[in-house]
Amino acid sequence: MAGDLDALRAKIEERLQAVLAEQPPVSLYAPMAHLVKAGGKRIRPLLAILSCRAVGGKTSACLDAAAALELLHTFTLVHDDIMDRDDLRRGRPTVHAKWDEATAILAGDGLVTLAYQTMLKTRHPGLTDILNIFTDGLLTLCKGQALDKAFERRKSVPLSGYMDMIRKKTSALIEVSCEIGAVLGNASPGERRALKQFARRLGLAFQVQDDWLDVVAEQNVLGKPTASDVMEKKKTYLTIHFLENASPAQKKFFAKLYGKCPLNKTEITRIRNLFNETKTLDSARAVVMDLIKQSLSSLLLLPKTPYREMLAAYAVEIRDRTY
Amino acid sequence: MAGDLDALRAKIEERLQAVLAEQPPVSLYAPMAHLVKAGGKRIRPLLAILSCRAVGGKTSACLDAAAALELLHTFTLVHDDIMDRDDLRRGRPTVHAKWDEATAILAGDGLVTLAYQTMLKTRHPGLTDILNIFTDGLLTLCKGQALDKAFERRKSVPLSGYMDMIRKKTSALIEVSCEIGAVLGNASPGERRALKQFARRLGLAFQVQDDWLDVVAEQNVLGKPTASDVMEKKKTYLTIHFLENASPAQKKFFAKLYGKCPLNKTEITRIRNLFNETKTLDSARAVVMDLIKQSLSSLLLLPKTPYREMLAAYAVEIRDRTY
Repeated sequence: MAGDLDALRAKIEERLQAVLAEQPPVSLYAPMAHLVKAGGKRIRPLLAILSCRAVGGKTSACLDAAAALELLHTFTLVHDDIMDRDDLRRGRPTVHAKWDEATAILAGDGLVTLAYQTMLKTRHPGLTDILNIFTDGLLTLCKGQALDKAFERRKSVPLSGYMDMIRKKTSALIEVSCEIGAVLGNASPGERRALKQFARRLGLAFQVQDDWLDVVAEQNVLGKPTASDVMEKKKTYLTIHFLENASPAQKKFFAKLYGKCPLNKTEITRIRNLFNETKTLDSARAVVMDLIKQSLSSLLLLPKTPYREMLAAYAVEIRDRTY
Repeated sequence: MAGDLDALRAKIEERLQAVLAEQPPVSLYAPMAHLVKAGGKRIRPLLAILSCRAVGGKTSACLDAAAALELLHTFTLVHDDIMDRDDLRRGRPTVHAKWDEATAILAGDGLVTLAYQTMLKTRHPGLTDILNIFTDGLLTLCKGQALDKAFERRKSVPLSGYMDMIRKKTSALIEVSCEIGAVLGNASPGERRALKQFARRLGLAFQVQDDWLDVVAEQNVLGKPTASDVMEKKKTYLTIHFLENASPAQKKFFAKLYGKCPLNKTEITRIRNLFNETKTLDSARAVVMDLIKQSLSSLLLLPKTPYREMLAAYAVEIRDRTY
């Protein structure tokens, strides 16, 4: 299974490199390629291909769409990093940190355009359907990003508001990836629904896991500073659960650190301790485990094939990831 | 003719308003709608519709595409204004000036997505062709913007480099507008080529005219500060022609003002005088007149219809505009 995934990853890298082959002006293409070349988990392209195969489609039918999904994802990261003033990602300086903001804005614009150009290479009678899924998903993602930014300015956000935000900001593009894979594999309506449901639950789990890792993992493993969500006053599963369960004294301690930037090692340990005292870290893990369990049950609506098993194993891999 | 154009403009406004009808989150939709609601000449949608009609198509077939072209154009303006740090456009604060940069980046991203969503509503067998024209044009435009920014840092740029840059930055989307109109009107290959050639020449004329107006027109007419190109060290037709034709003394005077921000009234008058002394303003006008003449000759390859005459009259209107 790991070997199969590695073979798929190699095909995705090859396609991405071809699409991002340097062209003039270098002042546009080098910043466009920067973050893609820094690596990444390639979750969205892998899910698209595995979904396509799980319903009987071919990898080759899906490679342009897979590359397009990664380009679209990279576009959102480049612009999000400017908005959040994050200077480090995947262990490298972000585009606006390496060049400047104007260059990063334009590199993002170039990437979204290249994503469409690459998707348009797909030869399939459902191309218009695919482009609508892609575009509607992107608009949902913009709404999620707007909510995420608006939440930074709000004193508190209910857990339901948070779940709605991450469904838009994170699940949407994972759902789009699996749905496009399904269309390209000529899935039945039931298979398509099952893959969408799988993806939505997996996406939610992925984001809560991300929130958890932000506090639990070390900077050298994460490729970005630990507790950056706390520094940026993000409303995450952790901060919301904590504020709903902390004592007045715990809240007072936390208030001194929430929004402080940078946080030193002692302060990060203090935050971890606070999140432990309120069982916030345990609760986040439990939510992830439960969502992954639910996502695996969605897969049972698909025919039993090796690719269904690969999707299941990949969901478990995402659950158990350390960065 | 003015009445016909006004009727078309009203239809375009109606479609734009429907597309931008407020949805949650307001923190995304209000900034997205801001610049569209500030008005604008709607050149690209008008050219698309007139091109479609000039080859025998219907306005109704073209309205979604027309709105999509205006949304795409607005997206580029919102992001360009951040990159160029322009605080005023169409007499109103720009999106990043009214809100903040993060909001403006996301509003732009929302607009490009909405542009694709609107284009995808078009019902025509050539939709994939249209989406490729749209996307390739947008990538060309990104390249043009990258060149424009790179030129700010260069000491000098040859006129040929400038013409290549404005063909990408300005002509590309005008060409895309006319070509999409042609496809939607089921143009013959010859008609399509003629409309593209017309648009390319018109686009070049439009940009040189824009460069000229930037120095010649007053702020209250322009809706933005006079001589902002000089303040931003842009390489325009005027600055390039001036530097190629000025005496050492004139260049020395100009060097003191090039990149100064803000410029006061006396300094703007000084710049106008310098550009007059080198016959730069006359030369720019002559180039505009010549390009418009060439664009009108491209139209003669189309069948003689009232819409061909409207395209010609509109080109002349653009030539004679004062803002």
